[in-house]
Amino acid sequence: MTERSPIAVAPAEHNWYSEVAAAVEQAGGTVVEPEHARGLIWLENPAGPPVTGPLHDAIEWVQLRSAGVDGWIRRGDIDDRRMWTSAKGAYAVTVAEHAVTLLLAGARRVGYYARATSWDQSDKELVRTVAGSTVLVVGAGGIGGLTTHYLDCLGADVIAVTRSGSPVVGARESRRADELAELWPRADFVVIATPASADATHIVDAAALAAMRDDTWIVNVGRGDAIDTDALVAALEAGAIGGAGLDVTSPEPLPDDHPLWTLPNVVITPHVANPGRIQLPPLLQVITDNVARFAAGQQLAGLVDLEKGY
Amino acid sequence: MTERSPIAVAPAEHNWYSEVAAAVEQAGGTVVEPEHARGLIWLENPAGPPVTGPLHDAIEWVQLRSAGVDGWIRRGDIDDRRMWTSAKGAYAVTVAEHAVTLLLAGARRVGYYARATSWDQSDKELVRTVAGSTVLVVGAGGIGGLTTHYLDCLGADVIAVTRSGSPVVGARESRRADELAELWPRADFVVIATPASADATHIVDAAALAAMRDDTWIVNVGRGDAIDTDALVAALEAGAIGGAGLDVTSPEPLPDDHPLWTLPNVVITPHVANPGRIQLPPLLQVITDNVARFAAGQQLAGLVDLEKGY
Repeated sequence: MTERSPIAVAPAEHNWYSEVAAAVEQAGGTVVEPEHARGLIWLENPAGPPVTGPLHDAIEWVQLRSAGVDGWIRRGDIDDRRMWTSAKGAYAVTVAEHAVTLLLAGARRVGYYARATSWDQSDKELVRTVAGSTVLVVGAGGIGGLTTHYLDCLGADVIAVTRSGSPVVGARESRRADELAELWPRADFVVIATPASADATHIVDAAALAAMRDDTWIVNVGRGDAIDTDALVAALEAGAIGGAGLDVTSPEPLPDDHPLWTLPNVVITPHVANPGRIQLPPLLQVITDNVARFAAGQQLAGLVDLEKGY
Repeated sequence: MTERSPIAVAPAEHNWYSEVAAAVEQAGGTVVEPEHARGLIWLENPAGPPVTGPLHDAIEWVQLRSAGVDGWIRRGDIDDRRMWTSAKGAYAVTVAEHAVTLLLAGARRVGYYARATSWDQSDKELVRTVAGSTVLVVGAGGIGGLTTHYLDCLGADVIAVTRSGSPVVGARESRRADELAELWPRADFVVIATPASADATHIVDAAALAAMRDDTWIVNVGRGDAIDTDALVAALEAGAIGGAGLDVTSPEPLPDDHPLWTLPNVVITPHVANPGRIQLPPLLQVITDNVARFAAGQQLAGLVDLEKGY
């Protein structure tokens, strides 16, 4: 038997409140007002009201709803006086599916054909297969790992790139991030699935783009600033790479007059890989799991590492 | 040891001639002029010169390059005086990949976003996941079978529909074509992967469309006439279904003024799932295999059944 823990869910007016509160109770927690809580489930985004509002010294743990926490870190909300957990990895299914979608859209020229208004097969030989192609997946956390699995199923040869280079399931090769310079030229497709962190900023810069082949298609479902946007536009305009499928951009939102909107070999989805409606079920699972762990005094899942930034 | 068989490759001026001739020799055949041949590899499409040109009574076998043979049957070229084989199933990888692309494009609204010229998240809750969705795959030959496998990997629940209803690997359920009327309402996505044949014409008709849900997305990589195009346009205009991703259409090519070009929830790729460049490697594999079987007196792969029409 685990001790029932007093957990607050806030803000109380959030439209997920009742479902989240029910999940807390089901997991063995007791839902209480913030002033009596030892744990806090915070349902707002960094753009909303500050999480620091309801915080007090007796709150030992805060569960955030997002997978990335850079917005919270930038606000300075995350302190070292308690445990903070994110929904790290929880949204991997939907985001990995989006990565595969943007990759296939490049291989099959869906963006190009979606804009066409007449039957024109003249460029059909530019259509490529992902089966048999080489895909560089940069970042093999939940999203990159699942993307690797999906691409392996589709018959691609995946080179998974992580800090450590430790083996990734489904990858033909697992390499270290410091080997990227020699890996870019091998990629038919590149998928960026890195979390926000200092060493992932501009991981695709002018030098990386110059090292890629002129038919390499880049997908970004990680963070917009993983790609140097100006260098990307220059490479696309020069025909130095094949094209790009972007769910995240820098700046974001992308302004109306940005050149990326009009390049024919670019597909932009406006950060929709993980819309709210899709987030709730996996978030409930994270909450259920962590409330049970908290009550049992076990290590929580998704602990934020302030130094790493995720 | 197998006897070396005299095989002609024609027309000799075709740009795949030398690669195909090399494959024949590698497989144990001897490449000869058509007048001395017992087998004929024919590299033209039905729109090209007639295969009957080089035919004579001593030719026991003709290998065609396409997966579907309805064009040949319509021309009346295929007789019952020898064996005819198609490349049935050989292009499954590229066409199944295209089916998955058009399905994901629907789930992730790639067509819609590809046409956008500004950052607009207002409809982001319409984005869906294929993981956890129900997909009806109609036709489970090489293409439908592999599409089922891919979708199973992506976490979809596939209902595979064939004439017989016999079990399809990777499908959650395998059902008979005569059960379709009760299956349409269950589908989040429908994939048509049927070969051309009389009983697959207008398999998606007004009644089928009326039975589908208003968010069902239809993919067609089989034959254009598997869908009643007028009924499809009416259903799309009425918002009775979610949308469509079509690599094949009826009529084909689709004329410039056709309403399908301007509907926002339609993605058309102009029959490019299997472009020529991608066809050659799998075709060489078919030829290698069948030349070896022919030399050894074994049953050939991809024998055309005139009655079934494929």
